[in-house]
Amino acid sequence: MSIDVQIWSDIACPWCYIGKRRFEKALASFPQRDQVRVTWRSYQLDPTLPEHDHRSEVDYLTEAKGMPRQQVEQMLEHVATNAAGEGLTYDFAGLVVANSRKAHRVLQLAKAADAADGGSCTDALKEALLAAHFEGAEDISDVEVLARLATEAGLDEDEARAAVDSEELDSAVDGDIALGRQIGVQGVPFFVFDNKYGVSGAQPPEVFAQVLETVAAEQAPKLITIDGEAGDACGPDGC
Amino acid sequence: MSIDVQIWSDIACPWCYIGKRRFEKALASFPQRDQVRVTWRSYQLDPTLPEHDHRSEVDYLTEAKGMPRQQVEQMLEHVATNAAGEGLTYDFAGLVVANSRKAHRVLQLAKAADAADGGSCTDALKEALLAAHFEGAEDISDVEVLARLATEAGLDEDEARAAVDSEELDSAVDGDIALGRQIGVQGVPFFVFDNKYGVSGAQPPEVFAQVLETVAAEQAPKLITIDGEAGDACGPDGC
Repeated sequence: MSIDVQIWSDIACPWCYIGKRRFEKALASFPQRDQVRVTWRSYQLDPTLPEHDHRSEVDYLTEAKGMPRQQVEQMLEHVATNAAGEGLTYDFAGLVVANSRKAHRVLQLAKAADAADGGSCTDALKEALLAAHFEGAEDISDVEVLARLATEAGLDEDEARAAVDSEELDSAVDGDIALGRQIGVQGVPFFVFDNKYGVSGAQPPEVFAQVLETVAAEQAPKLITIDGEAGDACGPDGC
Repeated sequence: MSIDVQIWSDIACPWCYIGKRRFEKALASFPQRDQVRVTWRSYQLDPTLPEHDHRSEVDYLTEAKGMPRQQVEQMLEHVATNAAGEGLTYDFAGLVVANSRKAHRVLQLAKAADAADGGSCTDALKEALLAAHFEGAEDISDVEVLARLATEAGLDEDEARAAVDSEELDSAVDGDIALGRQIGVQGVPFFVFDNKYGVSGAQPPEVFAQVLETVAAEQAPKLITIDGEAGDACGPDGC
């Protein structure tokens, strides 16, 4: 048995980190957790962002999304409370608004490395990027930051630096986004189990646990024998 | 997409050859036939047979199975008529009663070779063994016959000769038989599709065609989205 989970997710996406924790909580108590293979898929909520944006998160959301300032502040407070509930300390005041494209390219490098050697660099890097962005007030479009986080996650530093501007890895990012569009992903995080069940948003761990159990149960072989009129066969006692 | 078909079958099994033809007929008109992977699994209807048995098929069945001679003759006539309907010319008068164990070991060698290089020796050898036994009046427990058929099917002659008495390949035969017992195979041929649907006996091609279509349809991704109350997510217009 092997359960396939694909997760579309951005880095600049507060619910994605919360959703990651809730999924991990469900996974930790799932008996067949060793059989679950997670594939992180790139998604960009705002591909139009400049590489580095000097506005605060509140200013950015207020201006770019045309939302009232008070509503943005309430939304961020709601998000931060939920994050705290998962043990995450969001720092929206210090957050560096930045385009996540380069970070996604490095994540694609991690995916390729994991595919080649069965490692888990992608999850480590995804975790590090989310922590750096939401808790560490780091600039996730800065090459030095990316090189450091990638190296700590187990990637080769030179390869990580080259990945930042790699056209090939950029195409892999586009591929993930196109695949997401194809299956109807309109917001992130978005979880797809065995190409069969989709979970939209940072749902409670119980929802993820239930879907994992359902998928596992449906994988168990239930042999249905079809016997028509002409099922001639040979057995130990003759034909 | 890839459709997995496992076929438990013996060589000394007249309905197995007929069932093979009927399955092949269904496969030939199945649009996604290139995606179907067939695994031949060993099964022995009579493991107690001596290597070479000098009785005729009618004598063997009459004596060994305790069936009235007339009933045996009628049964063989019925089988031969069905075989003729699939273009097969069964020669029960010339048939050499023999234990199929050695032939199964060589089939296991073919399976290992195919697994290594993606070839199709197993199907070629299975076909050749059935033809040799039911149409060619050949002794399928004879090392020379086995070596010749294996070589014609694409195997290395020395490896084929070694396979005839290989303990390792004998264990593989036992493994197939044990797996069959586990899923409830009580007669052959027995077809299992995607570990999900079983077809017992040499059913008409229409039955196989229907199961192939069902399995293909069930493999097509039908994404079901689960949205509870707390599906917080971020989209292009905010979180």
